[in-house]
Amino acid sequence: MSLQIIKPKNIIDLGVGQPDPNLLPTSLFQPLTFHGQDLAYGEEAGDSTFRQTLAAWLSVDYGKPITADQLIVTNGSSSALNMICAQFAKPGSTVLVEDPTYFIALNLFAERGINVVAIPMDDEGIQLDALDCALQQHQPAFIYTIPSYHNPTGITQSHERRQALVALAKKYQCLLVADEVYQSLYYQKKPPPPLACYDNDAPVLSVGTFSKILAPGLRLGWIQGEGAPIQKLLRSALLKSGGGLAPVTSALVGPLIANGEFQAYLASLRQTYQIRLDTLYEGLKTSMGDKLQMTKPEGGYFLWATLADGSHVASKLAVAEKKGVNFLGGALFSANQGYASSMRLCFAWYGVEELEIACERLAQVFRG
Amino acid sequence: MSLQIIKPKNIIDLGVGQPDPNLLPTSLFQPLTFHGQDLAYGEEAGDSTFRQTLAAWLSVDYGKPITADQLIVTNGSSSALNMICAQFAKPGSTVLVEDPTYFIALNLFAERGINVVAIPMDDEGIQLDALDCALQQHQPAFIYTIPSYHNPTGITQSHERRQALVALAKKYQCLLVADEVYQSLYYQKKPPPPLACYDNDAPVLSVGTFSKILAPGLRLGWIQGEGAPIQKLLRSALLKSGGGLAPVTSALVGPLIANGEFQAYLASLRQTYQIRLDTLYEGLKTSMGDKLQMTKPEGGYFLWATLADGSHVASKLAVAEKKGVNFLGGALFSANQGYASSMRLCFAWYGVEELEIACERLAQVFRG
Repeated sequence: MSLQIIKPKNIIDLGVGQPDPNLLPTSLFQPLTFHGQDLAYGEEAGDSTFRQTLAAWLSVDYGKPITADQLIVTNGSSSALNMICAQFAKPGSTVLVEDPTYFIALNLFAERGINVVAIPMDDEGIQLDALDCALQQHQPAFIYTIPSYHNPTGITQSHERRQALVALAKKYQCLLVADEVYQSLYYQKKPPPPLACYDNDAPVLSVGTFSKILAPGLRLGWIQGEGAPIQKLLRSALLKSGGGLAPVTSALVGPLIANGEFQAYLASLRQTYQIRLDTLYEGLKTSMGDKLQMTKPEGGYFLWATLADGSHVASKLAVAEKKGVNFLGGALFSANQGYASSMRLCFAWYGVEELEIACERLAQVFRG
Repeated sequence: MSLQIIKPKNIIDLGVGQPDPNLLPTSLFQPLTFHGQDLAYGEEAGDSTFRQTLAAWLSVDYGKPITADQLIVTNGSSSALNMICAQFAKPGSTVLVEDPTYFIALNLFAERGINVVAIPMDDEGIQLDALDCALQQHQPAFIYTIPSYHNPTGITQSHERRQALVALAKKYQCLLVADEVYQSLYYQKKPPPPLACYDNDAPVLSVGTFSKILAPGLRLGWIQGEGAPIQKLLRSALLKSGGGLAPVTSALVGPLIANGEFQAYLASLRQTYQIRLDTLYEGLKTSMGDKLQMTKPEGGYFLWATLADGSHVASKLAVAEKKGVNFLGGALFSANQGYASSMRLCFAWYGVEELEIACERLAQVFRG
């Protein structure tokens, strides 16, 4: 399901967490000229010109100075998380995650034999008291957090929460891995900066990607950080053997950032997704009223909705399919078997008209 | 050193195992048209049209029928080996390798806490008696072998050796991982087919890449196999999360295979490298005579040369630098601390004129 490219005819699948194929900027990538160095084994951290270009854009977008040497170019955020697991965890290690969290991160940890301890969240993100206890109790390989427009809840950590979280990671010298793939998908005001921008002496790696803001097929992303964690990643045998992870795709994207076409595309994407978010949120308020509890996110891909009566959404999946709508049940995202009454609804994959229909269909599904 | 793009001025570095930057086909990649699906999350195994195109070329090149469903598209062979380690080995596992073997594979295994047992080679490849003993003694996660134009020795496994090797892997149900990155770089007659072509019921994965035959900066390769090992790779969380590993670069290369431009480029590359191999081999015979023992490889990147007097090449590295030449000492490739009198000389990175000078300089280094 996660890899469908052609939208199915009879169902509006709000479970798909992907950009709308109709929004992918095929025309941006022409004309194209490769230079010899784009085709060769590249620098381990990624082409330095590309990293400078990327750093310049990130500095503007984050409102914080980022330098090229704080960046490692990756094959998207999945590859980045995979690399981080390989370097910083092993079977039997413990990773602290949010409850709920990105379900495929849970798959990735499970596949590697990594134990997961899930820390509750509130409306400012991961709860620090519970995190502090867990840091004392376990010796985690790292903390995995999604600070902005959290997947699946849409919650954005406040500035104060981020400061305290980074301070805690520093105090315990525990690596903090921030999955920031939605960071630049703000629809009105910017979120606070990525966690790696808070304290250069804290062990923090922020993972970014072009998948949600340009095109997932590029498999192009970055890890931002300082000091020992970045140096450890740069010494990995994978980079020693293959060189930079993405010379050709960096060469495709670099010019689009340098000439501003990427930024213009991203601005239009923010407008489009804002309208879609409004449509889904208002549509569900209209069609379902107080049967559904929601907090409207300020960016990202996902609206998190919880049945007010506490009934379980999974029991309605068959009805939903019959009615022609789909969603991901909250339990999928919980390492603690929680959130059975919640669902993750993606507003990025469909246009306004289909989202309006989906709201009607969801209301029918949960009517009785 | 392994990532230099601009050749250093005063030294001819035969230690660099890279394609000559002057041979990289920058003009092949124009014009370019992406379709929406190239930019989206792709099929886990890689775009099916691309895999069909790749399979059709491999079928011709290998002289064996290959189908699209036997292929997983990867980010080059390093990424493939990394994926295979993640899925089939863990800290404390044992991997059987050849002695000598690709040194960065040794780094990769060490980094993951994987133990290595090195099996001696003869002039037909890995020695099967020793391998059989090791298979009985250890329960290896897999066997790692380089069948064609072995790195560093240049040895190519005979057809009979391949048959027996695959039969042994099947008998012990031990995964056989064949690093076939030089398979298509034959200069006269083709080598026997990749190990994954021998027995569809044996647990074999053959790793291929466009790095040596088109452009390393693409980070584009493939894993060829059947049954359980391929299915296990396809279920990995990395693919579930990010989809196909290389949608955009597949879209760049597919048309070049379909229209034959890639094959024409590869044919010219074979001619160029044949001449360079001849130059290095004949040059060293002339300049060093029977001081050096060599077997001329029939493809690949490397000439393996051993000092007849048994002295250690490492002691000459400082002199070599002074004379303006470099090589990789054989000990680097040996998990058994062997091969100190051997060196790996790459003939792909430099043109004829520089290779001739290098032969003279090497003779001076080892003169006295």
